[in-house]
Amino acid sequence: MNTQKKVAVIMGSDSDFPVLKAAINTLKSFDVPFEVRVISAHRTPRQAEEFANNAETNGFGVIIAAAGKAAHLAGVLAAYTTLPVIGVPIKSSTLDGLDSLLSMVQMPKGIPVATVAIDGAENAALLAIQILSLSDDRLKELLKQHKYNMEKGVMEQNQKIQTEV
Amino acid sequence: MNTQKKVAVIMGSDSDFPVLKAAINTLKSFDVPFEVRVISAHRTPRQAEEFANNAETNGFGVIIAAAGKAAHLAGVLAAYTTLPVIGVPIKSSTLDGLDSLLSMVQMPKGIPVATVAIDGAENAALLAIQILSLSDDRLKELLKQHKYNMEKGVMEQNQKIQTEV
Amino acid sequence: MNTQKKVAVIMGSDSDFPVLKAAINTLKSFDVPFEVRVISAHRTPRQAEEFANNAETNGFGVIIAAAGKAAHLAGVLAAYTTLPVIGVPIKSSTLDGLDSLLSMVQMPKGIPVATVAIDGAENAALLAIQILSLSDDRLKELLKQHKYNMEKGVMEQNQKIQTEV
Amino acid sequence: MNTQKKVAVIMGSDSDFPVLKAAINTLKSFDVPFEVRVISAHRTPRQAEEFANNAETNGFGVIIAAAGKAAHLAGVLAAYTTLPVIGVPIKSSTLDGLDSLLSMVQMPKGIPVATVAIDGAENAALLAIQILSLSDDRLKELLKQHKYNMEKGVMEQNQKIQTEV
Amino acid sequence: MNTQKKVAVIMGSDSDFPVLKAAINTLKSFDVPFEVRVISAHRTPRQAEEFANNAETNGFGVIIAAAGKAAHLAGVLAAYTTLPVIGVPIKSSTLDGLDSLLSMVQMPKGIPVATVAIDGAENAALLAIQILSLSDDRLKELLKQHKYNMEKGVMEQNQKIQTEV
Amino acid sequence: MNTQKKVAVIMGSDSDFPVLKAAINTLKSFDVPFEVRVISAHRTPRQAEEFANNAETNGFGVIIAAAGKAAHLAGVLAAYTTLPVIGVPIKSSTLDGLDSLLSMVQMPKGIPVATVAIDGAENAALLAIQILSLSDDRLKELLKQHKYNMEKGVMEQNQKIQTEV
Amino acid sequence: MNTQKKVAVIMGSDSDFPVLKAAINTLKSFDVPFEVRVISAHRTPRQAEEFANNAETNGFGVIIAAAGKAAHLAGVLAAYTTLPVIGVPIKSSTLDGLDSLLSMVQMPKGIPVATVAIDGAENAALLAIQILSLSDDRLKELLKQHKYNMEKGVMEQNQKIQTEV
Amino acid sequence: MNTQKKVAVIMGSDSDFPVLKAAINTLKSFDVPFEVRVISAHRTPRQAEEFANNAETNGFGVIIAAAGKAAHLAGVLAAYTTLPVIGVPIKSSTLDGLDSLLSMVQMPKGIPVATVAIDGAENAALLAIQILSLSDDRLKELLKQHKYNMEKGVMEQNQKIQTEV
Repeated sequence: MNTQKKVAVIMGSDSDFPVLKAAINTLKSFDVPFEVRVISAHRTPRQAEEFANNAETNGFGVIIAAAGKAAHLAGVLAAYTTLPVIGVPIKSSTLDGLDSLLSMVQMPKGIPVATVAIDGAENAALLAIQILSLSDDRLKELLKQHKYNMEKGVMEQNQKIQTEV
Repeated sequence: MNTQKKVAVIMGSDSDFPVLKAAINTLKSFDVPFEVRVISAHRTPRQAEEFANNAETNGFGVIIAAAGKAAHLAGVLAAYTTLPVIGVPIKSSTLDGLDSLLSMVQMPKGIPVATVAIDGAENAALLAIQILSLSDDRLKELLKQHKYNMEKGVMEQNQKIQTEV
Repeated sequence: MNTQKKVAVIMGSDSDFPVLKAAINTLKSFDVPFEVRVISAHRTPRQAEEFANNAETNGFGVIIAAAGKAAHLAGVLAAYTTLPVIGVPIKSSTLDGLDSLLSMVQMPKGIPVATVAIDGAENAALLAIQILSLSDDRLKELLKQHKYNMEKGVMEQNQKIQTEV
Repeated sequence: MNTQKKVAVIMGSDSDFPVLKAAINTLKSFDVPFEVRVISAHRTPRQAEEFANNAETNGFGVIIAAAGKAAHLAGVLAAYTTLPVIGVPIKSSTLDGLDSLLSMVQMPKGIPVATVAIDGAENAALLAIQILSLSDDRLKELLKQHKYNMEKGVMEQNQKIQTEV
Repeated sequence: MNTQKKVAVIMGSDSDFPVLKAAINTLKSFDVPFEVRVISAHRTPRQAEEFANNAETNGFGVIIAAAGKAAHLAGVLAAYTTLPVIGVPIKSSTLDGLDSLLSMVQMPKGIPVATVAIDGAENAALLAIQILSLSDDRLKELLKQHKYNMEKGVMEQNQKIQTEV
Repeated sequence: MNTQKKVAVIMGSDSDFPVLKAAINTLKSFDVPFEVRVISAHRTPRQAEEFANNAETNGFGVIIAAAGKAAHLAGVLAAYTTLPVIGVPIKSSTLDGLDSLLSMVQMPKGIPVATVAIDGAENAALLAIQILSLSDDRLKELLKQHKYNMEKGVMEQNQKIQTEV
Repeated sequence: MNTQKKVAVIMGSDSDFPVLKAAINTLKSFDVPFEVRVISAHRTPRQAEEFANNAETNGFGVIIAAAGKAAHLAGVLAAYTTLPVIGVPIKSSTLDGLDSLLSMVQMPKGIPVATVAIDGAENAALLAIQILSLSDDRLKELLKQHKYNMEKGVMEQNQKIQTEV
Repeated sequence: MNTQKKVAVIMGSDSDFPVLKAAINTLKSFDVPFEVRVISAHRTPRQAEEFANNAETNGFGVIIAAAGKAAHLAGVLAAYTTLPVIGVPIKSSTLDGLDSLLSMVQMPKGIPVATVAIDGAENAALLAIQILSLSDDRLKELLKQHKYNMEKGVMEQNQKIQTEV
């Protein structure tokens, strides 16, 4: 039997929550179990270690980690687990998210972080679902449906715009 | 039964091969089945479509896509499949890989690409293995061993450097 | 006989429409036939392929493609046609359009995209008209008139500013 | 009758010549008539003006302009003609071509420059040929052949790499 | 006898006027004669040429040129005159002025543009006055007074802030 | 009694050693006790934690941490100690050290990292010595001597260059 | 006896004051004596020299210097003292603080500036306190308490967010 | 009588000398008197102050200042004099000169630095000569000759390249 693994949604500060809502909503709409945590790589490093150390045992399959500026959270979690870690660079008040992006994606050899776009929380959730879908046919089916719906959405936009030109 | 899924290693041009060798070597050392393809998003778009369309049916579980400059390959493959797609931005002759990185990681809503560091081919392979390990205990074990070996490697570097200071 | 070829104005999402209005207005003011489409390289890749594949047969002479972030649209269309493709990088919520610009302009050898400035929709239309004017004396004349009018406009600005100093 | 229009290949300095050879070779291989000039926007501004002013009358259909650093050449030529002007930003000794790219592509409203990749001389030639092909069926046919050859080339790379993995 | 030379304040578009007011006010406060022009390098290239060609004869000693995006104005004027040309890169709607800065400052060998900070209109005027002061003792004296006043201003800020801490 | 505190020189990989030698040589020349460690924030996170946790007790006064790419080392150490942590961003094979710099300097509120220039190992050592000198008159004296020597060095360069012009 | 050394908080202009308040509040909350000055490296260079020259004698232990754009203040002060100088790059109206950051952090060999994040005034104060704490057990204790409070704060955020998901 | 003013060529380190030779050669070829100094804003701040303070009295008319990284030299000199100061940003081992450029050009209100291109030493000299030429007809004539020679040089390049195509 293949029990559904959970997705962890970790943010470095609750100020990242508004961006992460898109991830949470996506996970909900795919009916994927998840848990949300505020864990700071720098202010609660022991919680970060503990969470990552036990994530697998605690039933998590994928970790989404969002942080801004010198965004170490995803890398720090990845240091303590072999679960796939998805990084969401958060745009903060300066540098337009470039600092967050580089701090996440440029991980050295041995410890990958699967980085998505700046503020790309929804895509982080979709990537987590894609990963879980490899052993979950229900999710596979839902992803195909989601892709079809996106396609239909664009085609409707196209129809609508014909009337506005 | 959980048949081992294959990893696809796709490059936009055979000039990317030297960088991708690190991915291939890592996959080999974990004894993960893989196939290698040269497929250009721009020069062989139909092959890209066909490959991505059939990747799941053909037994692939994860796609690694490497490309440089306006690196569309990963995104184009991701458009046609719900398998997780890992992007490796390749550093080319100008802009130090920043163009490749942004072209890969900044994917719009709905179609994620799991981007790793510029020229980060080894990490792309490790991420693919982490993903496959979710339903493969052998890989899970090997990843833990690999993490342990890396740790030991750093500790040996540390020992060695004491003699050089 | 030289039938007037149409300009295709393609956008990756209807959120790009406000920027593209400048292109549409310019095409209208030159009385150049055009069609507008919302086609996403990632969410409707088959529509992108189909559109580009048939663009020439369907009477198009130039394709303007606008997209933001990892802006693959122009490159994806160019992969399927030998018509000139003009890219308009759209500034999105992060990185000030630099990601869109590099994703469009840094096309690899063999598949050019004629890129204009970030959010440069009006110039994209003018470039399309310049291209069509090579075999259309009416457009050639209008372009010269337009150039003259711009010159006059600047000279009027100059007159007006003398009174404000 | 539609006499074949020429392509002008203008460079800001003869140090740009090695990069531009790819453009020249492409034009030759498509048997498109062309002329080459060294014209500096800053050191020979009158030649620039004169060339652009008379380009149409002198039988040119498209102008390719290559320059580095504060690369004004393409914009300066475009100021004096309504022919389509293609810009090739040249990478120079500092900033990796970013200065050249921004100086070319960020043209203000009214005067477009069709910019290709940094050092993208071959693509500039292909774009010029695409433009000329709109009223030249021979070129249209050759471009399709060229696209087919590129596709074949990638497929051969793919074959070859299978033996190297 | 050394008649007071005029400063030319040229802007590429009247939308640059709000930024340039700081230059104009500074020139006024030093009682330096100046003239203001709207001249676009791209939309009124002949006016640019004519102005620069005759600037010396017309009694100008320094030219201040302000422009945004692919900011060619200063370079184009400098191509036609041996007067010192001061460039003010204007921040426009994208890229935060980096495009304007690089387009101005990265001038190739032989044609310098004395570039000041992005939107640095006041400093452009001060630099022009410094240049003119080399043969004008009144200006030299005023510059020293201005420096002294700035010093006093900072010291007053310092006094005031002591009461706010 | 004020026992001399040690400086810790930590590097993320022994490949950073050549850059760090300048720090080590500077510490030696000031006769400041130091220890060198290879500790990776990602591959040996527990060593990082343990080292930082015990650094104060073990007699360290300042920690210098050098790392490249997504350079988390300094931040991770700072998370576990209240000793001042000095970060040296190491230039790696892409992005010219900008990724390392931003990953180090852009630390979020609460956990500072005192960042020096890219590859600025010597300055890191000098900063550590400045910090220790606050309660060590010998170091204070040596720093003044060092400043004087630098001054003399520049003046000698100046003398020498007079003969070469 | 170890008299408490003061922290100097220097800003290049009183417009930097709103950002620096976070530093001042932090110093107050740790009950660390400090003085605030407006000193411009460029408009009051002699005050800068005088302040830095006498800072040690006047009882200062650490200097915090904040400035924007071409932010020379920290470097100029560091030139005249061997006290540790902490730089706070201020984000100004263009370039998002990147100019300030590079102007501060990229100090040449011999004269370090301990640079913190753009607008990172609070961290500058914490760093100053960490430095002073090396010989002040009260501050050491307060820093540990502060770290503990931050940890608790994140854990409370975590609790609170559980109710909002 | 108008005695010829001298140009000061100041470099922050003798490692900048190879770049500055182009300035020196240009000044020699225009027979403009000049003096060369190595003065570091950070290692010899008092020499910088003294030099700038007395530059006018000592017969200098223009100061050229070249420095790399956090390139404060030009700004520091400009703080002490009302002579025009020309900045040459030197490309150093990281960041391709962007740090030097921004540290020089982004000067705050009140203290301009006339910045030329990265490593643009020859243009710095030409700009200095343009400034001096305002009251020196010999230089004015030579500058016109130089412009004419550059024009001829480009035209000869153009001739030569016709034979190589």
